[in-house]
Amino acid sequence: MATYRADIEYEGTRYRGWQIQANARSIAGELRRAAEAAGLAPVEIGGAGRTDAGVHALRQTAHLRTRRNADPEGLRRTINDTLPADIHVLDLRRVADRFHARHDAVARSYLYQIGLRRSGLAKRYIWWVRRPLDHERMAAAAASLVGLHDFASFCERPREQADTRVKVEAVEVRRTGDLLLVRLVASHFLWKMVRRSIGALVRVGTGELSAGRLRELLDNPGADAARIAEWTAPPSGLFLERVVYPGEPPLGALVPAVPLRPARVLDAC
Amino acid sequence: MATYRADIEYEGTRYRGWQIQANARSIAGELRRAAEAAGLAPVEIGGAGRTDAGVHALRQTAHLRTRRNADPEGLRRTINDTLPADIHVLDLRRVADRFHARHDAVARSYLYQIGLRRSGLAKRYIWWVRRPLDHERMAAAAASLVGLHDFASFCERPREQADTRVKVEAVEVRRTGDLLLVRLVASHFLWKMVRRSIGALVRVGTGELSAGRLRELLDNPGADAARIAEWTAPPSGLFLERVVYPGEPPLGALVPAVPLRPARVLDAC
Repeated sequence: MATYRADIEYEGTRYRGWQIQANARSIAGELRRAAEAAGLAPVEIGGAGRTDAGVHALRQTAHLRTRRNADPEGLRRTINDTLPADIHVLDLRRVADRFHARHDAVARSYLYQIGLRRSGLAKRYIWWVRRPLDHERMAAAAASLVGLHDFASFCERPREQADTRVKVEAVEVRRTGDLLLVRLVASHFLWKMVRRSIGALVRVGTGELSAGRLRELLDNPGADAARIAEWTAPPSGLFLERVVYPGEPPLGALVPAVPLRPARVLDAC
Repeated sequence: MATYRADIEYEGTRYRGWQIQANARSIAGELRRAAEAAGLAPVEIGGAGRTDAGVHALRQTAHLRTRRNADPEGLRRTINDTLPADIHVLDLRRVADRFHARHDAVARSYLYQIGLRRSGLAKRYIWWVRRPLDHERMAAAAASLVGLHDFASFCERPREQADTRVKVEAVEVRRTGDLLLVRLVASHFLWKMVRRSIGALVRVGTGELSAGRLRELLDNPGADAARIAEWTAPPSGLFLERVVYPGEPPLGALVPAVPLRPARVLDAC
């Protein structure tokens, strides 16, 4: 028995999400196929975050359990040689057999990229919001997400959850050039919780939703759930940024996953 | 009669190049279709650079000639509403009817992105070179491209060119993180000249080609053309960076078109 930890970068556009599904292309399915081709068959794969269809990852973490021993760096290269070009194993290392990517994680960080201008080079990595956004108003409202709240209105199928309360550890909103970045950090997230929180924050930015009303929605689980669902931000802008395990360094500065170049380099003319 | 200047950003992956072709999707073809849908029909479109299939542009410049008058900013928005997501008009302005995007350009700048690591997020925008590259050696060799040379060995179909001599104004090589950027600036370029020059420079970087032999190839038009053709760098890494017209500001600093994030954020662990 050998357990490996894999840290993985991917573009989710072409996939039905992380989780292996019958008759659909998934990130974990591609990883399993590549790991088996590299000699690990049979292998059991578990990821820290079940990213949805179209959602990307800068650093997803997974465990791979197998009966085979192999040199991790050689294995990493062999797996990468087989993986499609939009999935990449950044790091692979042997870990203790008790390591469980999902259970052992102490925090997950998601990064959302809102594009403030249309771009021919960024469609897959941003949500282009055409209406003007007041990002200072968004940052102020985002602060109300921090702390323990019942996110029943902000998730898909809340009744299937054991508990819809989540303690959000940090939210950051930062404008850099033509991008508005939002980072959410919590021990765990509910299904679609990030995209619905971003959707609501964007409505604060456009003026459709007041910061006070957002606080009310967080204080009244189940209220306006259908409307919040309509606001769901598209998967293209969402990146699982990092999964944090005990003893690991804290998150670094909030920087773009895939930056937008400044559009107006000729303004000086 | 009205003439507009359009500055355009695009990802070339899905297209057979800039130039309109029968039975193939082209950037200029999409632009013409969108301009006609916006009320400009009939419209004549001419671009400054004929980017090949798969080649991108950070700022291609084109003229649009039509009989219709329209507010440029409104027109730009309407055209962008119709264009596919991977083509974007950055700027549109009315210019003198004598403006010709190709003839009036005084310089073209191309940027090439070589990826020094595999990445799941950058395949469309880089050439990933797996072998180690000595980029200082490449920078030194790149200097030999500057000046007037006969690029007969470095272009496709040299016999169809009136003149295969090109004066290269500047070459820059810069490593930033896991990217190696190469910028070439000249009044004009021959077909595939940039990708063959990059291909040769990469062979200098791997050690397959010496800087002295590269100089010999530049001094002996026609020599080793088949071998240089084999070295042609793929279109994915190539961006038409800017087209410069008289009186416009010089090129800015060499920065990535689409940056690669640092892979090893957890090295501190």
